[in-house]
Amino acid sequence: MNGQHLLTINTGSSSLKAALYRVGATETCLLAAQADRIGAPGSRLRLEDFRGDTLVERRDALPDHPAALRTLLDQLRIRGWDRDLAAVGHRVVHGGDRYCEPRLIDAEVTENLRRLAQIDPEHMPQALATIEATVRTYPIVPQVACFDTAFHRRMPRVARLYALPRRFAEAGVLRYGFHGLSCEYVMEELRAADPAEADGRVIIAHLGNGASLTAVRGGVGLDTTMGFTPTGGLVMGTRSGDLDPGVLIHLLRSRESDSGVLGDLVTRKAGLLGVSGTSADMRDLLALEEDDPRAAEAIDLFCYQAKKFLGALAAALGGLDTLVFTGGIGEHAAPVRWRICEGLAFLGIRLDQDRNATHAPIISRENGTVVVRVVRTDENQMIARHTHRLTTQEGATNVSF
Amino acid sequence: MNGQHLLTINTGSSSLKAALYRVGATETCLLAAQADRIGAPGSRLRLEDFRGDTLVERRDALPDHPAALRTLLDQLRIRGWDRDLAAVGHRVVHGGDRYCEPRLIDAEVTENLRRLAQIDPEHMPQALATIEATVRTYPIVPQVACFDTAFHRRMPRVARLYALPRRFAEAGVLRYGFHGLSCEYVMEELRAADPAEADGRVIIAHLGNGASLTAVRGGVGLDTTMGFTPTGGLVMGTRSGDLDPGVLIHLLRSRESDSGVLGDLVTRKAGLLGVSGTSADMRDLLALEEDDPRAAEAIDLFCYQAKKFLGALAAALGGLDTLVFTGGIGEHAAPVRWRICEGLAFLGIRLDQDRNATHAPIISRENGTVVVRVVRTDENQMIARHTHRLTTQEGATNVSF
Repeated sequence: MNGQHLLTINTGSSSLKAALYRVGATETCLLAAQADRIGAPGSRLRLEDFRGDTLVERRDALPDHPAALRTLLDQLRIRGWDRDLAAVGHRVVHGGDRYCEPRLIDAEVTENLRRLAQIDPEHMPQALATIEATVRTYPIVPQVACFDTAFHRRMPRVARLYALPRRFAEAGVLRYGFHGLSCEYVMEELRAADPAEADGRVIIAHLGNGASLTAVRGGVGLDTTMGFTPTGGLVMGTRSGDLDPGVLIHLLRSRESDSGVLGDLVTRKAGLLGVSGTSADMRDLLALEEDDPRAAEAIDLFCYQAKKFLGALAAALGGLDTLVFTGGIGEHAAPVRWRICEGLAFLGIRLDQDRNATHAPIISRENGTVVVRVVRTDENQMIARHTHRLTTQEGATNVSF
Repeated sequence: MNGQHLLTINTGSSSLKAALYRVGATETCLLAAQADRIGAPGSRLRLEDFRGDTLVERRDALPDHPAALRTLLDQLRIRGWDRDLAAVGHRVVHGGDRYCEPRLIDAEVTENLRRLAQIDPEHMPQALATIEATVRTYPIVPQVACFDTAFHRRMPRVARLYALPRRFAEAGVLRYGFHGLSCEYVMEELRAADPAEADGRVIIAHLGNGASLTAVRGGVGLDTTMGFTPTGGLVMGTRSGDLDPGVLIHLLRSRESDSGVLGDLVTRKAGLLGVSGTSADMRDLLALEEDDPRAAEAIDLFCYQAKKFLGALAAALGGLDTLVFTGGIGEHAAPVRWRICEGLAFLGIRLDQDRNATHAPIISRENGTVVVRVVRTDENQMIARHTHRLTTQEGATNVSF
């Protein structure tokens, strides 16, 4: 491999993904690596090339994220793939109130991320540990934090506020929104396809294992369904989405639940998994639904809630010009897209059955006023772009720790 | 007073309202009584005639609901107003999964209400105590339970389900919806005004101290914003509405809150009161907003959330024919109606500024496709109607206890 390389690192709660890019006119992905089941039995590490062919598959014990990172970086080093590393980009789930764009990681950023771990103890400690381990490994390579909340940071205050006593907002209990890197990528793709659409009223339906809808006007995030945490908004694979708080209080009262039990319930046992009783994966449910009314019910609920949030965000936007489906479900589940859009002709949404079935770039009919698109999202690519832009435009190596 | 009379009783968490009706071609309200601050210092009892003139005002100690009821019924008896009592109608907040219409109160109904107290410990114990005390006072007078959930009982299952493990739905953790008596009254008024509208796609925005939006199609409730409890949905006077469950789990973790503290927070300290820091009353906030940005923020949040829920329910309905504003805010707060409807021309909603300012029966412009109405709701009247209908159509006195 010649030329300069970028490494992107994406830390999940029990996974770690990395990708190596060659820097040129665009960023080209050379390698992707993924560690799964970190801290659990059966952890696994896999490297594949740009064609998706497996290069390495190992079953090392990965007790924590730094161990997973070490194993992964070793694989790169052994093969000489980490030479000419121009920069490292990290996905950081939570940027809190401060960050509305990617930032070069320095001592101040690290300190702020440490503070954010208090409001997001689910994701931030792992992300921080990974960042610190990467900085130790490549101390002179500039590293960039790309925040999943940044795209939403310019939402108007009315969209960020919860109807709670003011002191909570002052303490940072606000709607942050997530999936921001996906939104940024989708908006750049949309701008490349049709600049006028990108400046109009857009809803991005990022439907994957996590799912959210985001309203964008003039390129700026106006509102989004996820909230203070990624558990809010729409029903997801294993997350409940928004709830009547009376439900949680009832559960606390009647079952001697505590925050740990409830947190586990609404983030890992609810959603499609909870309603179907069998699977969090939309592919499984679609395969099952004819014979299993519980699977059908889970799909119905997902589509119905997505439809309602779509209506809600269209009202916030004052009408709709473009609807983008993205994420694993959004890109591949034609029947889900169909059911979400069914009956929304009054909003100008009319799908073309054939285009939808083949996941065409534009799946709306000519006689609808809303252009409905399917865009393949790529958060890693967005991290690579941000990292490349930021490290070539600034005095990137003058980072002090 | 001549002829037969009906008494209606409406038990709140710390209040008790009663009204006496003369039965004829319609039910005519003769007297209204209200006991406030039950179980607290400064409790108060007030009787007024149909013109709103005060007949009695007392400051008896009212330690609990039966005491308040006794004091109130004494006032009726002293004046001979409880002679010729044909029936008593009770508002019951929660009808659970069983009741989709009013029911004559017998031992079975009472037993079911007792069971419902487990899922609604906030309201049901007081309602039950009041019903039992009234039955003891008028043992041979037929009494009717009118459920605030009944109107919503025919919602499709997809609108009733939460994205939680199935065992919760089986245990009754479902969206019930409330304000059903108000919805029934509004739908009867709408049917009288325009039967075609009543059979179309309707959203009822009941905006008062409690606030909800309800979607109705062909006269049947299709979806509603309140949920398992009246704390869900839209921001209200002191209630939070729906939340990202991650917010509550964060509060449980970080502040050593328990169910009592959290329940108090989201039902009594949140909403307009929490955001404004000064008042739960929209009239106060509208008077303050020019000078107090916190009051302005509370109003903004209310109107913005109502607009989003309106969009969500319009999507559930597949479009909108009629929007009805009702409840204290819905009937009287022209600026709130205006801001909710602003920018919704794409849904066919266009308000007429003058009609809106004067709270005219129809406040939409001729060129909108949605008829927007203001309807004065009357839950007591609805209870009287139900009670009269049910006790005259059935073998009403054959009630066994």
